[in-house]
Amino acid sequence: MSILDCAIIGGGPAGLTAGLYTTRGGLENVTMFEKGMPGGQIINSSEIENYPGVTGEITGMDLMMPWPAQCQKFGLKHEMVNVLRISKKGDLFTIHSEDGSTREAHSVILGTGSSPRKAGFTGEDKFFGKGVSTCATCDGFFYKGKEVAVIGGGDTALEEALYLAKICSKVYLVHRRESFRSAPNTIKRVKNTRNIELVLNSLLEEVYGDESGVTGVRVKNKSGVVYNIGVSGVFTFVGNDVNNQTLIQEDGSFLCDINKQGQVIVDISMRTSVPGLFATGDMRIAAPKQVISAAGDGAVAALQAISYVDEHLG
Amino acid sequence: MSILDCAIIGGGPAGLTAGLYTTRGGLENVTMFEKGMPGGQIINSSEIENYPGVTGEITGMDLMMPWPAQCQKFGLKHEMVNVLRISKKGDLFTIHSEDGSTREAHSVILGTGSSPRKAGFTGEDKFFGKGVSTCATCDGFFYKGKEVAVIGGGDTALEEALYLAKICSKVYLVHRRESFRSAPNTIKRVKNTRNIELVLNSLLEEVYGDESGVTGVRVKNKSGVVYNIGVSGVFTFVGNDVNNQTLIQEDGSFLCDINKQGQVIVDISMRTSVPGLFATGDMRIAAPKQVISAAGDGAVAALQAISYVDEHLG
Repeated sequence: MSILDCAIIGGGPAGLTAGLYTTRGGLENVTMFEKGMPGGQIINSSEIENYPGVTGEITGMDLMMPWPAQCQKFGLKHEMVNVLRISKKGDLFTIHSEDGSTREAHSVILGTGSSPRKAGFTGEDKFFGKGVSTCATCDGFFYKGKEVAVIGGGDTALEEALYLAKICSKVYLVHRRESFRSAPNTIKRVKNTRNIELVLNSLLEEVYGDESGVTGVRVKNKSGVVYNIGVSGVFTFVGNDVNNQTLIQEDGSFLCDINKQGQVIVDISMRTSVPGLFATGDMRIAAPKQVISAAGDGAVAALQAISYVDEHLG
Repeated sequence: MSILDCAIIGGGPAGLTAGLYTTRGGLENVTMFEKGMPGGQIINSSEIENYPGVTGEITGMDLMMPWPAQCQKFGLKHEMVNVLRISKKGDLFTIHSEDGSTREAHSVILGTGSSPRKAGFTGEDKFFGKGVSTCATCDGFFYKGKEVAVIGGGDTALEEALYLAKICSKVYLVHRRESFRSAPNTIKRVKNTRNIELVLNSLLEEVYGDESGVTGVRVKNKSGVVYNIGVSGVFTFVGNDVNNQTLIQEDGSFLCDINKQGQVIVDISMRTSVPGLFATGDMRIAAPKQVISAAGDGAVAALQAISYVDEHLG
């Protein structure tokens, strides 16, 4: 097999856009490795209204529908394999796949995203994308003027509760402990926000609703008292796993620098600490976790990869 | 007039997306200042095929058509005035407009872009967007397998010539001097690229063509010899002015840090050196100058502005 000019790992908005820009920019041998259907996490969203230029009531699936063909028009290839590991020896990267195959590449663009953790309550899967969300920026506006619950007690939960408090009439912040693990200033702002009500020492047991969506949650506090809160939406922020597994080397170290949260450290041009290796979308530091920004990252990384390959092989 | 939560300066893809995300994120008092029609530089493009999710043969004007309504749906206001200057006193920004009016704002998102300089040859305006381009990443692919001319001798001209050489059958690099003002390594790569032909000590006098587009250029060398080269496209890179005029203070200094090229220095979250002031799109350092990336910047800056205003006023 010939050496790839660029290997793209992941087929969400970042990976697809990287594929569009690398191939349209003249790299002739580019493969996107994505074990599932291209499109990314967003295809599970029931409605998206903040991708600029695409209007009307559309689902995440509808939004992403035209992307693969558009991106493959310029020669991007797609391999449906699960990539286990990326290694680098000298100037060449090797992509190790689950089926035992390997491919070599001059450059690699990562876009494997992140996975929000499940909170583990009844109804979480049933109502996911239909009242249960893991992204306030994405879905908060759909609950404008309504009451919602936020589950979690870390930085993200508190910040997302503050974000929602500006849009929703009331935010119940449900946390299983007495105190929050967050910056003191953030905690202070949450406590000073009049429409955030703290529901502490409490576990969310169930989200329920009807065909129109979520209508309420059942919560149990540490004394065993069970009560119901009527809400239209539930936002869970109980942790987020960065999908950085392909960077783990045989000795357990990471191929490039990551931060404490496991996010890949990049500069403003999506360059990692390893020349020729780029990281994009939700897996990188300071990721805004939006389709438009992930796609923007993909374009930036692609232009960098083109220059890198050109300089390197030229 | 009430103090704005956020003032957005410029109505291109970055400014519009910033407007969408700030208002949808709950900021209630947001105004976009754009003296002309919203949409930005891209509305002059006759074809765009690299905005992910929007397919088919469409013009830049078509692409941008739905944006203003989508962005204004959430409450963004548009003022058609020319902003002359932004100043900051204490925690408040003041927007000074050409009509003598002023507005105060808690945060400012800049997206005023940059303006490619004119090369000054006959036919430049007539064929702009129809064979004459200032962006290889945007338009190079439309000349796949064809011959093109690149005008200029600096870093950008050489890098864009290298980019085009991978797509086009031949690139004539027309430069008025004997030598290039660029990194030695870039010059070496240009000289080693077999399908780049140097046309030195030569001035581009005219670009000509017919209704189907450009068919050739007339060049005059320093001995006065005039010759014609048949090309389908002409890419001019004779300088780029960053539209940073609104940052210039009364004493001639800049409101925030800029680099030698006049680009606004930002971090990965589009924060400038001044708290509450954000810069997006083509005016910032390392800008890829693509609609998708500018829009991504707008979303990132908006989320930062929301946090800033919340923290600041909360």
